[in-house]
Amino acid sequence: MHAQPGRSVTSKVLALLDSFTPASPALTLSELARRAEIPLPTASRRVAELVAWGALERGADGRYRIGLRLWEVGSLAPRGLGLRELALPTMEDLYEVTHENVQLAVRQDLELVFIERIAGRHAVPVLTRVGGRFALHATGVGLVLLAYAPTEVQEQTLAAPLERWTELTITDPGRLRRALAEVRRTGYAVSDRQVTMDALSVAAPIRGPDGSVVAAISLVVAHDRADPVALAPLVQAAGRTISRALGTPVRAAATSHVTPLPPVT
Amino acid sequence: MHAQPGRSVTSKVLALLDSFTPASPALTLSELARRAEIPLPTASRRVAELVAWGALERGADGRYRIGLRLWEVGSLAPRGLGLRELALPTMEDLYEVTHENVQLAVRQDLELVFIERIAGRHAVPVLTRVGGRFALHATGVGLVLLAYAPTEVQEQTLAAPLERWTELTITDPGRLRRALAEVRRTGYAVSDRQVTMDALSVAAPIRGPDGSVVAAISLVVAHDRADPVALAPLVQAAGRTISRALGTPVRAAATSHVTPLPPVT
Repeated sequence: MHAQPGRSVTSKVLALLDSFTPASPALTLSELARRAEIPLPTASRRVAELVAWGALERGADGRYRIGLRLWEVGSLAPRGLGLRELALPTMEDLYEVTHENVQLAVRQDLELVFIERIAGRHAVPVLTRVGGRFALHATGVGLVLLAYAPTEVQEQTLAAPLERWTELTITDPGRLRRALAEVRRTGYAVSDRQVTMDALSVAAPIRGPDGSVVAAISLVVAHDRADPVALAPLVQAAGRTISRALGTPVRAAATSHVTPLPPVT
Repeated sequence: MHAQPGRSVTSKVLALLDSFTPASPALTLSELARRAEIPLPTASRRVAELVAWGALERGADGRYRIGLRLWEVGSLAPRGLGLRELALPTMEDLYEVTHENVQLAVRQDLELVFIERIAGRHAVPVLTRVGGRFALHATGVGLVLLAYAPTEVQEQTLAAPLERWTELTITDPGRLRRALAEVRRTGYAVSDRQVTMDALSVAAPIRGPDGSVVAAISLVVAHDRADPVALAPLVQAAGRTISRALGTPVRAAATSHVTPLPPVT
């Protein structure tokens, strides 16, 4: 364990919160101290303060978990629950007319975060979890978010190794660059068996009031019964409805010309 | 502004997060400093650390908002998104067969917090917000959570003034005490126009693996087309389905005898 005496108290508190992951949502005090790289006595004091406020809760098993108070505060994030509340009626409509999986995601740094998901009972299984992260270059929502991301985000993604999930995942930077240009040209993205060999997703952008792409919505369907060209207008229309709910002036023109396209990098 | 030099850094960081509310989700730095009762230079440093980590985000308008990173960490709260993920399929089923409002809530101290809500398009309007709080003594879910709460929570609620929303809100401690005993006897709660004069809710408990009541689920319907006695088994069955999803051994006996009743206080 490194004591790192130079770290600020704030960074230690945040490191304690950072210790929790979807794979390890319950931790003992010593696990917390080790993961946050904080000496045990210090960790003990900080954790007690976090429990008193409600950021952490201590279970009957002695393990600590993220507390409801932190969930409440987190629910005030405009890019989280705020976006979700505005998008949900449209997502439900899309689900009603297709009975397929509907997903909503935003970009955080070089990854996407799933904000909401409606899972079709009889639809193709998807592995996403609300609050879970995924790479940008494979899923439909990821391709949309990457296609409209700032140039430096695209360049960083293209410069890093592109992880492969299936034989159809795009891992060649040149091919990915052309795929992103195609997304900007058509106004939607198709990921055909690029994450699992049974699923295809069609995604479209959601724009904020300033016209920038702030989120993406997708339908995920079994690839053998999917017609991406038929699904695209449905998903694009949903994206435009949610953009309007966000206060975005949406023009009647073609989706791909709603706002000036970013330069093709 | 009080400087309060004795306060710990942790408490100051948490006070900054506490400054955000549903009514004020975007704050300037000076508003943050004033609400958290921290001197401006200190607030500035702490806020910069919170922004760097992603707990706060600074908008184009210069105001700070809760960041997506905090929403992500909050989504790991077992009593928040974890419960919601397990409950959602059952809530959707309940919605499909009724097309009425379905709500899920947990108790936090002397209030309830709404974890999820499916709002019927043509159902009676409800004012709840996911992540929002409400008093325990008026709604159906609140009456369930209060009926099965520890004795000290019941006594604190009964000792405090009971806020009135309609002429039918129970504000007399003796009547509320009898209503809670009735909830424990029948295994469900009915709030008939006790929050708004057009709505009635029927709620049932959700139990954790140790048999204790950890949440409540309700249907909220227009009071003039509602038959609480007919709705109760539907809501109770949903509560039991979710309890089972939580890993609770649910007996085949009557709902009100699933676990020993708490003493009537």
